Amino acid sequence: MAEVRQGVDALDRALVQLLAERQRYMDAAARIKPDRSVVHDDARIEDVVAKVLAAAGPAGLSPAIAEPVWRTLIDRCIAHEFGVWDRTRG
Amino acid sequence: MAEVRQGVDALDRALVQLLAERQRYMDAAARIKPDRSVVHDDARIEDVVAKVLAAAGPAGLSPAIAEPVWRTLIDRCIAHEFGVWDRTRG
Repeated sequence: MAEVRQGVDALDRALVQLLAERQRYMDAAARIKPDRSVVHDDARIEDVVAKVLAAAGPAGLSPAIAEPVWRTLIDRCIAHEFGVWDRTRG
Repeated sequence: MAEVRQGVDALDRALVQLLAERQRYMDAAARIKPDRSVVHDDARIEDVVAKVLAAAGPAGLSPAIAEPVWRTLIDRCIAHEFGVWDRTRG
């Protein structure tokens, strides 16, 4: 099990880097969006989830993992983006 | 915004690949663990979250994104691991 856990820990470090990069796109979006009302965009949320689920199948990632993880990620990223929007323009 | 969304979509595809790899470690763990009672391991959950939060700071990833995302990921991965354990040995 030690090797499995080391492998998971290494993947988690790589995931943190990608998610930090994703968060920087949220910062950019908050700067770009002119109106606070477009920070939350239901159509874009479903677009993101649909693209992830389409990629998950061929990659071998279970939708029972992918969908709740992305819905949590999206929810927290939107909250982050509102925070940035309000601090820079609120 | 189109470039931001394309950037996010590309990151999500990379995240899907890493999470599929992470899921394969869960499959390995289910094969290795002799006893169903060790599939859920509270000490290991807190170890994973602590390591992620330690990496998140230097990477610039908000803990308000990282912690709920990993808690959802871990919860869904444990459910996946129980499913594999039960199918192979239940």
